[in-house]
Amino acid sequence: MIKIGALVSGGGTNLQAIIDACESGYIDGKVVSVVSSKDGVYALERAKKHSIEGCVINKKMYGDDTDDVLIKHFQDREVDLIVLAGYMTILSEKFVNAFKNRIMNIHPALIPSFCGDGFYGLHVHEAALKKGVKISGATVHFVSPITDGGPIILQKAVEVRDDDTPETLQKRIMEEAEWKIFPEAIKLFAENKLRVENDIVRRSDK
Amino acid sequence: MIKIGALVSGGGTNLQAIIDACESGYIDGKVVSVVSSKDGVYALERAKKHSIEGCVINKKMYGDDTDDVLIKHFQDREVDLIVLAGYMTILSEKFVNAFKNRIMNIHPALIPSFCGDGFYGLHVHEAALKKGVKISGATVHFVSPITDGGPIILQKAVEVRDDDTPETLQKRIMEEAEWKIFPEAIKLFAENKLRVENDIVRRSDK
Repeated sequence: MIKIGALVSGGGTNLQAIIDACESGYIDGKVVSVVSSKDGVYALERAKKHSIEGCVINKKMYGDDTDDVLIKHFQDREVDLIVLAGYMTILSEKFVNAFKNRIMNIHPALIPSFCGDGFYGLHVHEAALKKGVKISGATVHFVSPITDGGPIILQKAVEVRDDDTPETLQKRIMEEAEWKIFPEAIKLFAENKLRVENDIVRRSDK
Repeated sequence: MIKIGALVSGGGTNLQAIIDACESGYIDGKVVSVVSSKDGVYALERAKKHSIEGCVINKKMYGDDTDDVLIKHFQDREVDLIVLAGYMTILSEKFVNAFKNRIMNIHPALIPSFCGDGFYGLHVHEAALKKGVKISGATVHFVSPITDGGPIILQKAVEVRDDDTPETLQKRIMEEAEWKIFPEAIKLFAENKLRVENDIVRRSDK
């Protein structure tokens, strides 16, 4: 059973999907610590409801030492995997290298479309609608020092509708893609079915 | 019933899918002329087999007048729509503007991924595999003066497999996506169900 650490900044709906998948046994793992970059976010409430440790670690508290504090926090808890579940802070190269191919992020588009610096939250969906794409989706990937640039684990396509707003598209991509492929990717990781070769993720079960 | 002109440069498998869709009645239209940029390509054989006019028009024959010759060729035949079915020549702004939102192209990726100058043929699939995407697909779009930049009409996602080569991925995207959405987009055009608003394609049937 793997130990999972989570980094959050907001409501934590993806965190909830992951907690549920662990509790149901779909993922052979357990979320052991939820760290938020912000005080008072609902993701911390979710942790509390499930008796998971929750705390706040951010630059306001630790300044330049923040990433060292974060690294030590997760190392002390011996986490096997760190999931970014709506974490709105850029991680340092030092942090990423400390957990190489052991940090997962979800991005609400089909990378390499609509990703990189500036593409976060509703901006992603605004850009997709402005381009007029008919298919968007979500991507789970390992985190590398380049924003949204790490090895892709899973992707799922979602239809874009003519009457979509950024909000309706965001909601559909969450429900139809994110809450499915994020737990699925973690399940595969927990079952040791993912290997990374030359920055490409291969599945040992396929 | 719309009149369709086709521009080709090679084997013409997409052309075949379109001819078949016209002959079966799926598209309320008829391919009236197939123009190739190269001599001796199999697309011209396909035209012949279906008693469709075929000819070669290229820069070697007409130099700087090529686009004027092409424009006149299709205007003389009163085509409603021009389809680029594996046409490997960049069209001039003059040609594109002469048939604004009446030229369709198919691109073997989910635009805006893996598109633009340099992304043609197998290069598209090589790039997708190098990036390690798990989903690719195809896009039908109206042609604008910017390569692969025009309004998107239809897209279809296709799964990428761990053991794919550029060739196997190309084949699957053709079979599962291109040969379906290209005829479908033409069908919608023939039924007058597509309108372009601010470079976004809207469907009147949805």
